[in-house]
Amino acid sequence: MKKTFISDFSNVKDGDRIEDIFLVKVKQQLFRKDGNPYLMLKVCDKTGTVDGKVWDNVEEMTGRFSGDDFIMIKGVMSSYQGTKEINIKAVERVGDGMVDLKDFVPVSDYDFDVLEKQLYTVIASLKNPFLKKLLTLFYEDREFMELFRIAPAAKDIHHAFLGGLLEHSLEIVDLCRDIKNHYKEIDLDLLITGAILHDVGKVRELKYRRSLDYTDEGRLVGHIMIGVEMVDEKIRIIADFPARLAMLIRHLIVSHQGTYEWGSPKAPQTLEALILHNMDDLSAKVNIFRKAMQADSGEGDFTSFNKPLGRYLYKNRQTE
Amino acid sequence: MKKTFISDFSNVKDGDRIEDIFLVKVKQQLFRKDGNPYLMLKVCDKTGTVDGKVWDNVEEMTGRFSGDDFIMIKGVMSSYQGTKEINIKAVERVGDGMVDLKDFVPVSDYDFDVLEKQLYTVIASLKNPFLKKLLTLFYEDREFMELFRIAPAAKDIHHAFLGGLLEHSLEIVDLCRDIKNHYKEIDLDLLITGAILHDVGKVRELKYRRSLDYTDEGRLVGHIMIGVEMVDEKIRIIADFPARLAMLIRHLIVSHQGTYEWGSPKAPQTLEALILHNMDDLSAKVNIFRKAMQADSGEGDFTSFNKPLGRYLYKNRQTE
Amino acid sequence: MKKTFISDFSNVKDGDRIEDIFLVKVKQQLFRKDGNPYLMLKVCDKTGTVDGKVWDNVEEMTGRFSGDDFIMIKGVMSSYQGTKEINIKAVERVGDGMVDLKDFVPVSDYDFDVLEKQLYTVIASLKNPFLKKLLTLFYEDREFMELFRIAPAAKDIHHAFLGGLLEHSLEIVDLCRDIKNHYKEIDLDLLITGAILHDVGKVRELKYRRSLDYTDEGRLVGHIMIGVEMVDEKIRIIADFPARLAMLIRHLIVSHQGTYEWGSPKAPQTLEALILHNMDDLSAKVNIFRKAMQADSGEGDFTSFNKPLGRYLYKNRQTE
Amino acid sequence: MKKTFISDFSNVKDGDRIEDIFLVKVKQQLFRKDGNPYLMLKVCDKTGTVDGKVWDNVEEMTGRFSGDDFIMIKGVMSSYQGTKEINIKAVERVGDGMVDLKDFVPVSDYDFDVLEKQLYTVIASLKNPFLKKLLTLFYEDREFMELFRIAPAAKDIHHAFLGGLLEHSLEIVDLCRDIKNHYKEIDLDLLITGAILHDVGKVRELKYRRSLDYTDEGRLVGHIMIGVEMVDEKIRIIADFPARLAMLIRHLIVSHQGTYEWGSPKAPQTLEALILHNMDDLSAKVNIFRKAMQADSGEGDFTSFNKPLGRYLYKNRQTE
Amino acid sequence: MKKTFISDFSNVKDGDRIEDIFLVKVKQQLFRKDGNPYLMLKVCDKTGTVDGKVWDNVEEMTGRFSGDDFIMIKGVMSSYQGTKEINIKAVERVGDGMVDLKDFVPVSDYDFDVLEKQLYTVIASLKNPFLKKLLTLFYEDREFMELFRIAPAAKDIHHAFLGGLLEHSLEIVDLCRDIKNHYKEIDLDLLITGAILHDVGKVRELKYRRSLDYTDEGRLVGHIMIGVEMVDEKIRIIADFPARLAMLIRHLIVSHQGTYEWGSPKAPQTLEALILHNMDDLSAKVNIFRKAMQADSGEGDFTSFNKPLGRYLYKNRQTE
Amino acid sequence: MKKTFISDFSNVKDGDRIEDIFLVKVKQQLFRKDGNPYLMLKVCDKTGTVDGKVWDNVEEMTGRFSGDDFIMIKGVMSSYQGTKEINIKAVERVGDGMVDLKDFVPVSDYDFDVLEKQLYTVIASLKNPFLKKLLTLFYEDREFMELFRIAPAAKDIHHAFLGGLLEHSLEIVDLCRDIKNHYKEIDLDLLITGAILHDVGKVRELKYRRSLDYTDEGRLVGHIMIGVEMVDEKIRIIADFPARLAMLIRHLIVSHQGTYEWGSPKAPQTLEALILHNMDDLSAKVNIFRKAMQADSGEGDFTSFNKPLGRYLYKNRQTE
Repeated sequence: MKKTFISDFSNVKDGDRIEDIFLVKVKQQLFRKDGNPYLMLKVCDKTGTVDGKVWDNVEEMTGRFSGDDFIMIKGVMSSYQGTKEINIKAVERVGDGMVDLKDFVPVSDYDFDVLEKQLYTVIASLKNPFLKKLLTLFYEDREFMELFRIAPAAKDIHHAFLGGLLEHSLEIVDLCRDIKNHYKEIDLDLLITGAILHDVGKVRELKYRRSLDYTDEGRLVGHIMIGVEMVDEKIRIIADFPARLAMLIRHLIVSHQGTYEWGSPKAPQTLEALILHNMDDLSAKVNIFRKAMQADSGEGDFTSFNKPLGRYLYKNRQTE
Repeated sequence: MKKTFISDFSNVKDGDRIEDIFLVKVKQQLFRKDGNPYLMLKVCDKTGTVDGKVWDNVEEMTGRFSGDDFIMIKGVMSSYQGTKEINIKAVERVGDGMVDLKDFVPVSDYDFDVLEKQLYTVIASLKNPFLKKLLTLFYEDREFMELFRIAPAAKDIHHAFLGGLLEHSLEIVDLCRDIKNHYKEIDLDLLITGAILHDVGKVRELKYRRSLDYTDEGRLVGHIMIGVEMVDEKIRIIADFPARLAMLIRHLIVSHQGTYEWGSPKAPQTLEALILHNMDDLSAKVNIFRKAMQADSGEGDFTSFNKPLGRYLYKNRQTE
Repeated sequence: MKKTFISDFSNVKDGDRIEDIFLVKVKQQLFRKDGNPYLMLKVCDKTGTVDGKVWDNVEEMTGRFSGDDFIMIKGVMSSYQGTKEINIKAVERVGDGMVDLKDFVPVSDYDFDVLEKQLYTVIASLKNPFLKKLLTLFYEDREFMELFRIAPAAKDIHHAFLGGLLEHSLEIVDLCRDIKNHYKEIDLDLLITGAILHDVGKVRELKYRRSLDYTDEGRLVGHIMIGVEMVDEKIRIIADFPARLAMLIRHLIVSHQGTYEWGSPKAPQTLEALILHNMDDLSAKVNIFRKAMQADSGEGDFTSFNKPLGRYLYKNRQTE
Repeated sequence: MKKTFISDFSNVKDGDRIEDIFLVKVKQQLFRKDGNPYLMLKVCDKTGTVDGKVWDNVEEMTGRFSGDDFIMIKGVMSSYQGTKEINIKAVERVGDGMVDLKDFVPVSDYDFDVLEKQLYTVIASLKNPFLKKLLTLFYEDREFMELFRIAPAAKDIHHAFLGGLLEHSLEIVDLCRDIKNHYKEIDLDLLITGAILHDVGKVRELKYRRSLDYTDEGRLVGHIMIGVEMVDEKIRIIADFPARLAMLIRHLIVSHQGTYEWGSPKAPQTLEALILHNMDDLSAKVNIFRKAMQADSGEGDFTSFNKPLGRYLYKNRQTE
Repeated sequence: MKKTFISDFSNVKDGDRIEDIFLVKVKQQLFRKDGNPYLMLKVCDKTGTVDGKVWDNVEEMTGRFSGDDFIMIKGVMSSYQGTKEINIKAVERVGDGMVDLKDFVPVSDYDFDVLEKQLYTVIASLKNPFLKKLLTLFYEDREFMELFRIAPAAKDIHHAFLGGLLEHSLEIVDLCRDIKNHYKEIDLDLLITGAILHDVGKVRELKYRRSLDYTDEGRLVGHIMIGVEMVDEKIRIIADFPARLAMLIRHLIVSHQGTYEWGSPKAPQTLEALILHNMDDLSAKVNIFRKAMQADSGEGDFTSFNKPLGRYLYKNRQTE
Repeated sequence: MKKTFISDFSNVKDGDRIEDIFLVKVKQQLFRKDGNPYLMLKVCDKTGTVDGKVWDNVEEMTGRFSGDDFIMIKGVMSSYQGTKEINIKAVERVGDGMVDLKDFVPVSDYDFDVLEKQLYTVIASLKNPFLKKLLTLFYEDREFMELFRIAPAAKDIHHAFLGGLLEHSLEIVDLCRDIKNHYKEIDLDLLITGAILHDVGKVRELKYRRSLDYTDEGRLVGHIMIGVEMVDEKIRIIADFPARLAMLIRHLIVSHQGTYEWGSPKAPQTLEALILHNMDDLSAKVNIFRKAMQADSGEGDFTSFNKPLGRYLYKNRQTE
């Protein structure tokens, strides 16, 4: 198990010994002036990133692990041009079972199993047989669920942590149910289905087994298009799925970001689409707000400038 | 009581007699080629507007009523350059008690008294003594309440009918309460106070005793600024009202339209302000959507182009 | 066959007899003041639209045809509130074979069969077996080709005529081939495939058997998303279709409008996508320009204000 | 009195003694690896900022001063990771009377008293008794004047120095008087009043007793709203102040930034408001231009990229 | 001389005789159903436009005048589809000397000769010999001055009347002189030269001998580019004109509209350019404001929506 | 000849000797604490920039060379605050003939002479005698051609290397010829002339004898305006050059950037202008794309964020 965190390294002096587990972000073989190779690593945990260099036994060490692996590093702290780095003496790959994922990547505060059960309950509550069948097919697709239950909702911005996508989707389901009495003409089953599926394409838009990034498909095609494809794939299996219902689900997905400028190829044109966009927006903005509150430990009544929202946020909210 | 509506005049032939009550929108004295005066009127009911002209006894008739009055017109239908107009023979002012306001201007589906009672209940539920006192001062200000209970929320766009402002504000209160469990760190009393007061300046921004329009102050200063002034006026009366609480209420008012582009001089910087803007936006957009649904009796699956939302809206929502 | 066109009706006097074929755009049953029904029609040909009314034998006449049918009208020219309309005495449905489609809707200057053969030649020229197979599957899908060979490229704007989509797509193929020598690193087969398929979703986005309009699916989902679905459907049939190749085709479709503002959920990120967007843009703009030149018969050196391009266009181009 | 400035520290060698007065910007207690506390300071003068650390007698030293105090530091220059910092041996708070404010913060080139007298002359020149009374009330409010006479016009951008607000406001008064002959229909007294009061809310929007920053109220409510409140407060005291005149003053304040995008909730709708916005804009832009000229000592004919104006500025203006 | 104006025609009955002078805007030969030609005219005076038709002696009448001529019309008032038109019996061309131009096109309130003399005085006041020579060359170019002294400053928008360009340019000169004391570092001669020449290209951008419109060159090249060319033409004649001074004049012309969005290919980068843009903007906006005040005779405190400024304008400015 | 490049200096140790040729970017005399002067240089080659300092014989060394000269430096590698710099012992100016320009600035892959010959062939092919004469005048203007044949097309962005302007212009000529068959109504000679001349103003907008930067005229007036002036200068020499043809060439130049936002004071209004803008855009974007491909040696399938295009670009284009 991990003993120290990179955020504490400012207190480690040159020459002190380091022996701990890290996640490999970058692994690159470079060459010294004398022509001999050395290994340049960037390793991280949830608190930051640090450089490490292997000068000896480079060949052998190189073969022991790959990028995105967990490794046990034994080495000595040193400095290069004013920056700390680890002079690595030995390195071993460490199995996933040996580490607590939460020490290395940001993770939802909710248990993955709890969120999955909550999803099951939502699906069970639907009355429309086609929508229920559609969501059930997703739920029973274990390959999909293995991804969906841990996917983040974004690379940074909002709900950018493992489990964030499901947490975010279920929050929207809850919000829609909360306000449903004011909008009696809505098709609640359709709206809930849209809440669950609106970002489903993110399981393929993002890479997130360990560190978060976009996939090629994510950048080139995007989660909206991918999401529609994933939904189409399931709908094809369901006998007599009404064409118009399928079209309305697709509309929810393609319009959920609200405007062209935000990457939605269509603006919301149904009541369900208007509400889904509004609740998606609320859930995202509140999450950004909360994250800014937690991240900001500085003095003063305002956070530092918050880029996603484009403004400073007020921290001192408590009213006497 | 009113017998016929202007929307039916396409079925009235030239020469048919007209005898009914109308609301005077425009009253102007013009002159004929021979130098004699005549009276040009534009009169309306909730279904439309029609021209009327008084050719005889102009002096006497002119003295009998003013703009924005209800009048009983006796005359004959005629045409001028292809457009129907009433050749008015006699006209009498009619007291407010003789007419049903709903025949002339759009009005909330809710009873004004019911909405006012609902407001009272909301105020009574508050725990923060300063906020409760603040809202109570508004509630007990009968001059204000006479305006607030019938004010529309806008000239056109959304909730543009008598009682629309209170209906809209209470809807936001309800929405905020509905979703409060997801956002436990919010100060619910503050948020509810913001929901009630965010558009309070509209009682002075708009003219709406009968027809809806902007006041001079509404155009030159705007409801956001007016609303802050009205709130300040009450706060000054309350002993020891906390300065920071006052500031947070003002922030809710100045930021509720969300962005500079929409006329808010500040973007939401507190959690309550983010939520208030989102719920205000939802209430307004759904109201626009519903109004478009009701107004559109045409064939086809889409409404005509909806200007406020900038898109066509889908009417055929029912899923099999 | 059609004898006269609506554009000539300004020369027809009230009371003159009308006997000709028209296309039904709107058909609506309304009621007279005496409670009896009458039939209100809007009928068109390629030169304009005119109102028509059936006052007698309404029941029987109503049953004889539907909207979007061709009908032979016998009637008398009359006027209502200064506008010409046909007082219809008799009406009969006319089979498609009896009319020349070009008298009623705008049609490509090229023969549909010629364009289809040109498409075949393009497909035959491809070397990449997967891309060739993909396009061949579209080509051999007769149901699809019946639509694709007559589809317009837009409702108005550019290539808004039957056959316009194929004409436009083949023009882009030609343009890409013309310039290929400058961009030797491009995958020409991929680019050509993108040129053929980039707007393929328009066969479902638009209605165009006779008059042009959007389908429900067109408004709610859009041709980009529909196009990707149609391509996916074919790719699924092809064994071992490379995943990356499929992704690159999807990227060409989702990015071909160039920017978010123009409704593309992704900007071009490959060289082929950059070129496809540029050539699509060129083909569309030149078509808008030519259409404006043809439509403008006025005096002066400039066309009237051209809305799609947002400017006046210079007509007097010939240099001495 | 101050002897050296931070801008000269590049010439101070490690180990040299430092003994001088600085302004405390940041004061923070941190902990060493051995658990003992140390004091981290950021201190500044008008030429820059430097770090300082207190390693000994931390408790005692901490109690001797607060943030935003002037302090006499005795210490030794040292380096940490390539950056100069002061190893502080002793520190004492220094009274305001002992320092020349101009050594620490940017200050207007004009004497505060001169500007105040100029303001008095402007007020004395007004003919409209209500406007004269209004401005006199501000002038006689000593608490207000203590702030107004030293307030900056902005945190950075333009007139960002002590006295800048009054200097800027009086410049606009002068500009308005200069051009008044061209616009004879203007109400000059009203325009001058607007020039004086348009930014008056900045005395509460900004903190500026020493370093410049926004107040909480400044960020959450903004100087436009605050300014209206301040004006309202005075108007309430004046008997029979005409309602329309009050409205026109408020309009000048809310519209002076010209457009929604610049944070004005209303665009100028009166001639005075149009002119005030234009002159405010001119004064601000010229000040930005001059500041860029002074700040830029580099070679070449252009300044470095000027962010507030979004362009490079030409320095080599002199025409032969 | 003209006796009646088109604005009074609402009081003229069908069958009344018309005998008066008009300006020909459109002259077009059309054909009746029987194949015989008739002449369709649109004629105007400063108050409006009216249709006229010549049914008899068409050949002969056609030869008597051209578009943009003044003509004496003898005819009878009639109506066509609810709109008044003149049934023309006889028509004669009228020489320019017989009419008062002001009856037909909008004209500056200032006498053209007075404005020209004022220009002379400005030029005489310059000290910089090169700038004085440059402006003198323009002034002594009689062909140019014949155009410059009557040119409008725009087709509509602001100063859209004969003489408007010179009136507008001299107003800017005056404004610049008024405020010069605040900006002592400015090169006043350069600024004044820019004020005179900034819009000089409009003499070729617009057609304005009688009715106002764009020239081909105006639309395709624009007054900024034309202005620079005109200035270059004069500068070439002046021996040893300093290159940098020429560049600074060109900069004033190309940047005077302030931003790319307003059609300036460069933003102001010198102090003179900043001030010129600001004063140009002020002069234009005030003129738009005044024009709106004059044009609006309606009731209510606001003008109708003002398109150039994008807002309603307040009319009731007088403060008690 | 140059032996080593700055990109290799990371392998040079402090104390190693340096003896090589560099290009002087910055040369500045500063003063040491003891009052003695030293010389601070920034010198570059095509791979980067490095600081150099002359501590001895400063007077003499200073006189030996100027900014933008090539110099032979003899010195010793040292470090200052973690950054490498050359301690210069001796320096000599080196003549242009002694260096290969390509070692110091980016240069077209094409030979300048080859490009010039290609230009000659294009001119020779024109049929319109006026356009042929116009281009010939440019071609025969040796002073101009010395600049035109080596000018870059931009400071950074696209074709930012010596020879880039001619390479870019000829590429557009070729593209226009390639696609000419689709647009038979175009005046190809006019379009080709526009392709050659559209950016001709860049020979004066940019400085590029060695390092690339804007000239004063480039920033203040811009290449569009300069280009029109240069073309006008030649046209004046040609007898009877048709006015309309001159106007159409000017239109091509002023509109070639397509929109106001991109700095064009006019949008394309002729077919030739539409096509020229489109081809210019294509050539520029493809060049940006290729440059990004070459510059990016990192891992992963995407380039780093590409600023000119505002997106990531996909590198892994090869389809299996």
